[in-house]
Amino acid sequence: MNRKSVFYTLGLLLDIEAVLMIVPALVSCAFREWKSAGMLLLSSVIASAAGSLLLFICRHRNKAIYAKEGFVIVSFGWLLLTLFGAMPFVLNGELGFIDAIFETASGFTTTGASIITDLDSLSRGTMFWRSATHWLGGMGVLVLMMAILPTDTEGSVHILRAEVPGPTFGKFVPKLRKTAMILYLIYIGITLIEVVMLLCGGLSIYESLVYAFGTAGTGGFGLRSNSLTDYSAYVQWVIGVFMVLFGVNFNLYYLAIMGKVRMALKSRELWLYFGIVIVSTTLVAVNVYSYYGNMNDTVRNSFFQVSSILSTTGYFTADFDAWSVRAKAVLFMLYFAGGCAGSTAGGIKIARLILLGKTIRRDLRHMVHPHSVGVVKFEGRRVDDNTLRGVTSFFVLYVAVLASVFVLLSLLEPAVDLLTNITASMATLNNVGPGFGMVGPYLGYSFYSPVSKVILSLSMLLGRLEIYPLILLLSPAIWRRK
Amino acid sequence: MNRKSVFYTLGLLLDIEAVLMIVPALVSCAFREWKSAGMLLLSSVIASAAGSLLLFICRHRNKAIYAKEGFVIVSFGWLLLTLFGAMPFVLNGELGFIDAIFETASGFTTTGASIITDLDSLSRGTMFWRSATHWLGGMGVLVLMMAILPTDTEGSVHILRAEVPGPTFGKFVPKLRKTAMILYLIYIGITLIEVVMLLCGGLSIYESLVYAFGTAGTGGFGLRSNSLTDYSAYVQWVIGVFMVLFGVNFNLYYLAIMGKVRMALKSRELWLYFGIVIVSTTLVAVNVYSYYGNMNDTVRNSFFQVSSILSTTGYFTADFDAWSVRAKAVLFMLYFAGGCAGSTAGGIKIARLILLGKTIRRDLRHMVHPHSVGVVKFEGRRVDDNTLRGVTSFFVLYVAVLASVFVLLSLLEPAVDLLTNITASMATLNNVGPGFGMVGPYLGYSFYSPVSKVILSLSMLLGRLEIYPLILLLSPAIWRRK
Repeated sequence: MNRKSVFYTLGLLLDIEAVLMIVPALVSCAFREWKSAGMLLLSSVIASAAGSLLLFICRHRNKAIYAKEGFVIVSFGWLLLTLFGAMPFVLNGELGFIDAIFETASGFTTTGASIITDLDSLSRGTMFWRSATHWLGGMGVLVLMMAILPTDTEGSVHILRAEVPGPTFGKFVPKLRKTAMILYLIYIGITLIEVVMLLCGGLSIYESLVYAFGTAGTGGFGLRSNSLTDYSAYVQWVIGVFMVLFGVNFNLYYLAIMGKVRMALKSRELWLYFGIVIVSTTLVAVNVYSYYGNMNDTVRNSFFQVSSILSTTGYFTADFDAWSVRAKAVLFMLYFAGGCAGSTAGGIKIARLILLGKTIRRDLRHMVHPHSVGVVKFEGRRVDDNTLRGVTSFFVLYVAVLASVFVLLSLLEPAVDLLTNITASMATLNNVGPGFGMVGPYLGYSFYSPVSKVILSLSMLLGRLEIYPLILLLSPAIWRRK
Repeated sequence: MNRKSVFYTLGLLLDIEAVLMIVPALVSCAFREWKSAGMLLLSSVIASAAGSLLLFICRHRNKAIYAKEGFVIVSFGWLLLTLFGAMPFVLNGELGFIDAIFETASGFTTTGASIITDLDSLSRGTMFWRSATHWLGGMGVLVLMMAILPTDTEGSVHILRAEVPGPTFGKFVPKLRKTAMILYLIYIGITLIEVVMLLCGGLSIYESLVYAFGTAGTGGFGLRSNSLTDYSAYVQWVIGVFMVLFGVNFNLYYLAIMGKVRMALKSRELWLYFGIVIVSTTLVAVNVYSYYGNMNDTVRNSFFQVSSILSTTGYFTADFDAWSVRAKAVLFMLYFAGGCAGSTAGGIKIARLILLGKTIRRDLRHMVHPHSVGVVKFEGRRVDDNTLRGVTSFFVLYVAVLASVFVLLSLLEPAVDLLTNITASMATLNNVGPGFGMVGPYLGYSFYSPVSKVILSLSMLLGRLEIYPLILLLSPAIWRRK
């Protein structure tokens, strides 16, 4: 383990977080919230002091970064981001320590689960920071670091691979730094379009930014405890559509921008994703028509909830927990799908589900014809055995983590029913946010005990980082000195 | 596909079922239920006529049986056994067609889920048949066929492999027929010991047989709708312990009988299985002590429920659905474990869970040290990659089937809550029987619609045959003529 290089990178990361915290401080200033502005700046100073200290201590370092270092950087990076990102809430006296950790983990991991019961008690500055964590966590702060700093070492690919969701990591261009920049430019571009469209809907610049952040990161934090229920149909449609868009693989946007639209449209994952949106919306709409009595409201609400859960955002316009069992069962399954690989969405990801299906088909064929050599193809290319093994292995680990979170919550919370704990585990691990029962929409996670909140925070981080980096921290192999 | 050989084997199977049906007819005679005896004999005659017709048509056959034929024989064999096994209920006017299919599938697959609301409405003869299906299905009727008929063709191993549960199939001796005989002799032996112990507890010979059948097959059908609640503590302990014993890998009993007790006790699966029993019983006991107020009742009831669900039997002595969330969460997880491989229990099986864990550990090591060659060992022997791939692939398929059953039930049953449908899917696919909510203990599956009952029956068959044989029927590769 190259510890110095790990600490150095973590130092850089904290410094970037410190710089980013200045923005919400300025927002606070704009709203004349002087105390909040001060506390945000203080948080920024503390983070930058810690970061700079790490940089100074590790200034003489060997730059080599391998797979191990990549995992450790991503794991500790995200834990530190959460820890320091929680400071404004605590310093401002708005949240206790554990609650602040939960809220920040929920922000960075783009889950959007909240323990805040009264959103109006927060200053505009911290609210802005809370939503900004969604935007930063969606594409990844380490990716951002690579895009803006000239630290393109050989090993950076391990960091990118560990932070960008999906079974494989697609490099756009030979130079990694450029790939990271392109990712962020596309991300900024689509976010800006959404901001403009929300402004057109009559939202203030502050509101537009908050909701665009929440949508872009597929997060789900907003400004009201009933989420988007009271907003206009126009706003709901805009956000509904953008949630779907941010669940699309960013590689495809890059292809489209490069003029290869036809190639982008060949993606099987994309069409399956759209197919799921259409089929689920239809299934839900048929079963909730009686709640609305007209096509307009039925379709809009059905589409919004489907798009929100499939993209693992977690905004809502209706109390879907009160919907019929049929509609709820459809939504229940969407929790697991997640968006496309290489998007900001959480969950298992459509690409993995396709690969799991193909692996099963290959193995079935192998049982009938034991001497057949099964080749699995995806998006026109042959998928090697290592990737396939990684996908099934991820799935097993995913189920194991889900089961563990559920068991721990159930043992720790005698007053919470099984379905609530099941959906709380699903909603955090898949980075969705609201679940059913006591964690349904309009409600929140505030009733959980501090220990459970820590477990739920870890569940969110495990989900966002796709399990491996954090689990590997427990492996002795990673700590052994060579 | 060697169709003639497939049909011939199916014919043999039906003839065996016909012979076996004579036993409950004799039971009916003993209780002077003449109508029921007549209908059981009529069912037997119809089954033997159908079987003999198949034998006659396919008398000139090529004996070769390969993997394909093995899967087809096992799938159709079980479907036919269920179909013809349902006849006595229908002919006796006791159940409708779909209900009879459900009850018989539940019997043969050793699930023990019931749609019968008034057990006293059945004749003693059909009740005996109902329980006998547990005993026959536990070890497998095809295994029985191999044990008693001199049809030891080269391909029989494919049938045994497809019918005996677990990731690998252990041959005791070179000759398959002898392996099948040994399996059945051990099975008969332990069943008889249980019968004797139940007789000592004051049960009648009829009652003792019914409960021994239900325990041995890890089934769960009994004589009362409150299962074993009203029986003496002695009977509950006997059945509780035997449920655990029938969840043990039969290979170990064989080793023990051969005098290799020390070798049998080396099994890691066995110790994990016992460990789960002890830890779960303790966890449950701590959380249900307040319901009983004394150690005796607490431990007995906790142990009984744990042993029943872990071994996938489904007997109960308490309304565990009314227990605390903590106790229920422990039981919830036990649904998935199942007993040991090579036992009569259902579920995923401990051996598979161990192999899944080891596969994950190997893959994690591989991520840190990409050039490491991971060898997985189990029970002292190296496990080849094909077996490991089979285990992960089984797990993925298992989750997919579970999710499909849940979604279908939810879409078909607007009046049934999510948790009921979740546990109904779990309880049928894992061959346990009772679930939580509307399918909790003391309740039953009678409220489900006919279509849902068919789906639940298929779920039970998929669970008992460990998915592959039935799924392969849908594969075109199996039907292609070479």
